[in-house]
Amino acid sequence: MLLSHPKDSLRILTLFLWFFLFCLIQRADFAQEKPKTLPYQDIAQELAARGLQKQQAFSFLKRLTAIGPRLTGSPQAEEAVELARQIMEEIMLENIHLESTQVNRWVRGEKEEAELISSTTGTSHLSICAIGGSISTPEGGITAEVVEVHTFKQLRNIGAKARGKIVFFNRPMDPALVDTFHAYGNAADQRVQGAAEAAKAGALAVLVRSLTTSLDDSPHTGMMRYEDGVPRIPAACISTKGAEYLSNVLKNDPTLKVHMKMNSRYLPPVISHNVVGEITGAEKPLEIILVGGHLDSWDLGTGAHDDGSGCAHSLEALRLLKELGLKPKRTIRAVLFMDEEFGGTGGRDYVQDQKRKGEHHVAAVESDRGGFFPLWFGVSGDAKALSSLNKWDYLFQSLGMCGIRQGGGGVDIAPLGKSGTLLIGLIPDFQRYFDFHHSSRDVLDAVNSRDLELGAVSLAVLAYVLAQEGI
Amino acid sequence: MLLSHPKDSLRILTLFLWFFLFCLIQRADFAQEKPKTLPYQDIAQELAARGLQKQQAFSFLKRLTAIGPRLTGSPQAEEAVELARQIMEEIMLENIHLESTQVNRWVRGEKEEAELISSTTGTSHLSICAIGGSISTPEGGITAEVVEVHTFKQLRNIGAKARGKIVFFNRPMDPALVDTFHAYGNAADQRVQGAAEAAKAGALAVLVRSLTTSLDDSPHTGMMRYEDGVPRIPAACISTKGAEYLSNVLKNDPTLKVHMKMNSRYLPPVISHNVVGEITGAEKPLEIILVGGHLDSWDLGTGAHDDGSGCAHSLEALRLLKELGLKPKRTIRAVLFMDEEFGGTGGRDYVQDQKRKGEHHVAAVESDRGGFFPLWFGVSGDAKALSSLNKWDYLFQSLGMCGIRQGGGGVDIAPLGKSGTLLIGLIPDFQRYFDFHHSSRDVLDAVNSRDLELGAVSLAVLAYVLAQEGI
Repeated sequence: MLLSHPKDSLRILTLFLWFFLFCLIQRADFAQEKPKTLPYQDIAQELAARGLQKQQAFSFLKRLTAIGPRLTGSPQAEEAVELARQIMEEIMLENIHLESTQVNRWVRGEKEEAELISSTTGTSHLSICAIGGSISTPEGGITAEVVEVHTFKQLRNIGAKARGKIVFFNRPMDPALVDTFHAYGNAADQRVQGAAEAAKAGALAVLVRSLTTSLDDSPHTGMMRYEDGVPRIPAACISTKGAEYLSNVLKNDPTLKVHMKMNSRYLPPVISHNVVGEITGAEKPLEIILVGGHLDSWDLGTGAHDDGSGCAHSLEALRLLKELGLKPKRTIRAVLFMDEEFGGTGGRDYVQDQKRKGEHHVAAVESDRGGFFPLWFGVSGDAKALSSLNKWDYLFQSLGMCGIRQGGGGVDIAPLGKSGTLLIGLIPDFQRYFDFHHSSRDVLDAVNSRDLELGAVSLAVLAYVLAQEGI
Repeated sequence: MLLSHPKDSLRILTLFLWFFLFCLIQRADFAQEKPKTLPYQDIAQELAARGLQKQQAFSFLKRLTAIGPRLTGSPQAEEAVELARQIMEEIMLENIHLESTQVNRWVRGEKEEAELISSTTGTSHLSICAIGGSISTPEGGITAEVVEVHTFKQLRNIGAKARGKIVFFNRPMDPALVDTFHAYGNAADQRVQGAAEAAKAGALAVLVRSLTTSLDDSPHTGMMRYEDGVPRIPAACISTKGAEYLSNVLKNDPTLKVHMKMNSRYLPPVISHNVVGEITGAEKPLEIILVGGHLDSWDLGTGAHDDGSGCAHSLEALRLLKELGLKPKRTIRAVLFMDEEFGGTGGRDYVQDQKRKGEHHVAAVESDRGGFFPLWFGVSGDAKALSSLNKWDYLFQSLGMCGIRQGGGGVDIAPLGKSGTLLIGLIPDFQRYFDFHHSSRDVLDAVNSRDLELGAVSLAVLAYVLAQEGI
């Protein structure tokens, strides 16, 4: 019997209403159910959101660059060591310690001076800087005629014409190359070996066109090497505008002279430090995923891109993982190396340190290409390693990046490669890097906080995935 | 009989020598043979090399921004039309012409003024700018108390409290989002509809927090809309630093007043122009691959990123294709639109123009997200269109880009979508875009020449491949 009684029909109506309500709730539940995400996708999104909200990488970088230039062996470099240790304490890393490394010490001394003295244009100022490691000029400086060359071959071809002169290496970084690091590599021989090659030809000194893609009046410094058995002559970089000017005046006045004065010198070696801190692995503490950059910088700017950014990336990556309360299976370790710019002793000593006994470094990721927007991670291993990592591309694509590609590494982590560690480099946008690199323009203002933070986020994502999944 | 005669043996020896020489030549030929490249790879590399060597995109942008701000309907916008036509002549495009479009004209008038008047902090300056399309304040300005809200819902909830006051919309762009355009979209309602919503609540005026991810003292303008039947009240944007300051003072002094004075007004509509030039297709001239940007800009800066860069990209893409002497099968057309910022009439009129009869626009690519390093092309079509284009990813990857992804288009090309044109947007690095967007900071110095050029190169590559291969 159906609906025999008004009370019954009320009950049935109530039942229907409940059922209807139940369906509605189900529907709402269903609507609110999150779409299934791929592995680590939620974590990557959360790391990005927290990172971009607080932008702590920039605040780390601000504190580091506030110290000033951090030339290897300088008191400022040691201040940076102490600051890095302090930040590691603040973000509550584990096993925080310094590892010593003996470094050579070179100082620029008083600012360099240079003048072009021409019978056609009179006397004009040139912007130069000593190349790192160069000897000084004699006290009164050097005044000599100039011979311009673009290659070592050309230098050899001119024979005795270089004798008693200043050799001016004026080969620009090739602007036609998309990869500015490739262009840098093609031009860096002038700065690194130019002095030795010119000395073989009897030159008194060298002026090298600054290694930058921009045309400006800031000279860019960097490292150089003398050769045993070859006279040591002073070597300076000249700004690109200065190089263009000098080259133009030379065309009309081949007997013009340049006066240059440098005041650089070596001091005795000192003990400096790599700074190490980690999130110790919960399951495999001796298997290490290393992330790092270098604390030392050149002395003209404050090393904001090179490599304050890499240090900020590494510290912030670990801070973010701690903030999310993630407990990686393997150890994720930040190593802030010393002396990348002036010999690389920090990277070499790290590998040889007694503490490495029993440790297995699965992968090492270096960030030493500035704080620009991160494009991809470059992997040094074989195609197999790359394809194994490519399955995580979607994580980096969700950060606006390209993913993982072939080709990368870093000076500081290179010594780890010998024992089979997979070497990886963070590759940020590289079009503007050499506008700043090794020059007075490499300061905090040249770094964008969001770009920098996304580098740190991407590093956190990669380190965590590697710590959980291996390679 | 073999070698019966010395002469015979000489002949055979000669034969052997010839054969040997032939083999050597073959071998040399083989050694010199270039490694096989993928389709269009050589062209992409050549476009990049030529582009980066000359960096003409930047010189086009320099000329365009030298005109100054190019507000729709202004004499400067018309100067830009003439300059664009002239550049198209210089780079020898075909079928160069102007297409007229009637545009509304609004002028800012004298610079706005604003002051915060508080019993606790005294009187202090606030940086504001009229939102594009806003009416002026009365001649003496408006002085009123301020009520801060973050959403329209919150505005409705406070009911009568907004009456007679200045409504201060202070919802920031969400910094936690990787996609700054997404964050912009989430916050733009305040600027676009804020005045109408506040007027419904009886407010006298609105102040809107500038839409930028940076904290600075430059107000950012943009477009707004009044609603029919709702009173029109003045609307201004306040710098993010100003917004933070105002919000902080409000906490201690809820009865503080703001004085604001604006001098904007509408002038009668004028006839302006889209500028069109092309490389006419050798085989299918009526099938069009359109590349474009917009000539008009906001009036606070000189529209270097928005959208001088898109115009420079488009012009340089066609110049590069001409420089290489490429003869595309389909027509590659540059359209520099008018009035993207103030109504979009240029894009709409382009579609309706009589000249479109018989034309089929296969694809349209807009560059309207600045002159930063190009990350990828975003495609508006379905998954099929995307996967058909993904086969060209390697070309863009060789330029350091990510490739082609889902999601893109542009205001100016949107009207073409209705007739089935595949809409594509160039997506450059978007982390810094809103630092400059619609503000006095959007000037030439904010654009890097290599970044800009690579945008043009990528556009040239995409346009050429589409012209040859279709979709």
